[in-house]
Amino acid sequence: MYDFESQIVDIPDYPEPGVIFKDITPLFGNPEALKAMTDALAEHFAGMGITKVVGPEARGFMVGVPVAVALGAGFVPARKPGKLPRETVSQSYELEYGTDSIEIHADAISSKDTVLILDDLVATGGTVEATGKLVRDMGAKLVGYGCILELAFLNPREKLTPSDDDVELFSLVTVD
Amino acid sequence: MYDFESQIVDIPDYPEPGVIFKDITPLFGNPEALKAMTDALAEHFAGMGITKVVGPEARGFMVGVPVAVALGAGFVPARKPGKLPRETVSQSYELEYGTDSIEIHADAISSKDTVLILDDLVATGGTVEATGKLVRDMGAKLVGYGCILELAFLNPREKLTPSDDDVELFSLVTVD
Repeated sequence: MYDFESQIVDIPDYPEPGVIFKDITPLFGNPEALKAMTDALAEHFAGMGITKVVGPEARGFMVGVPVAVALGAGFVPARKPGKLPRETVSQSYELEYGTDSIEIHADAISSKDTVLILDDLVATGGTVEATGKLVRDMGAKLVGYGCILELAFLNPREKLTPSDDDVELFSLVTVD
Repeated sequence: MYDFESQIVDIPDYPEPGVIFKDITPLFGNPEALKAMTDALAEHFAGMGITKVVGPEARGFMVGVPVAVALGAGFVPARKPGKLPRETVSQSYELEYGTDSIEIHADAISSKDTVLILDDLVATGGTVEATGKLVRDMGAKLVGYGCILELAFLNPREKLTPSDDDVELFSLVTVD
């Protein structure tokens, strides 16, 4: 597989001391890496009948839209509260301190849809788990989560793919 | 050309009374429309040697990334202040009331680049003009602006494509 890890830059102590921020913008700026990312995610999830890709604001848009095009699917943005102009459904989730929530247009997904959720980074998995809960509450079939980078040491798979779940998490790069 | 206008929903009095918000999310949710948008923008700007597509946060990501993939270019996000983790260059621009500014990573664009700027909507043109100014200040060649929807009655072309400029504005839908 393409060496995606070489395209991700570690930023120590950002946005606060002790945190290492993973900057994925160099991957997007490199034409070969961007094409390889799109192809790798689309090829992995091909043949599953995916009708909609959902991506959380804002870097989830950067991953989700090109893969949706490659899969022949539509793209549905999951946004922070107050950003979508029509009727929405909403799901809150826990942060390290406090809570946040994510919204999807109420008519954007139906029980006829087969859905893939994509984001740039999966850390604790809170954002994509909340997005997945929304998708299922809307009656759609959720087939998987995909990302460029998985922070495996934060154990997102315990939350996203428990042993009794057939929903898969696929990551291009895993940090143990 | 594909009937893109049918995929855009008018939201009266949003976000405030008297404003008609143009919701482009139905276009993205429709696989045929999303593919047609990507192809139409990429075909229009093909053969110009474009190396980087720049898109302003956040809906500019949704338009810019798939077109970058289709053109074989990289994608560079232009973000609101404080969102990019490394050294940035910044450009302010006027809003109806007050000012805003937009940032690009300082190493993301160089004098070797040929750049296309894409956004979902061009209204007064302030955001994409500021983005274009940044791109030129970084030494790159700017070849064009593209969007799904141009609000021509706000006269963005006076700002973006004056008579002595060879930079083009291409829109899939124009509202007179």
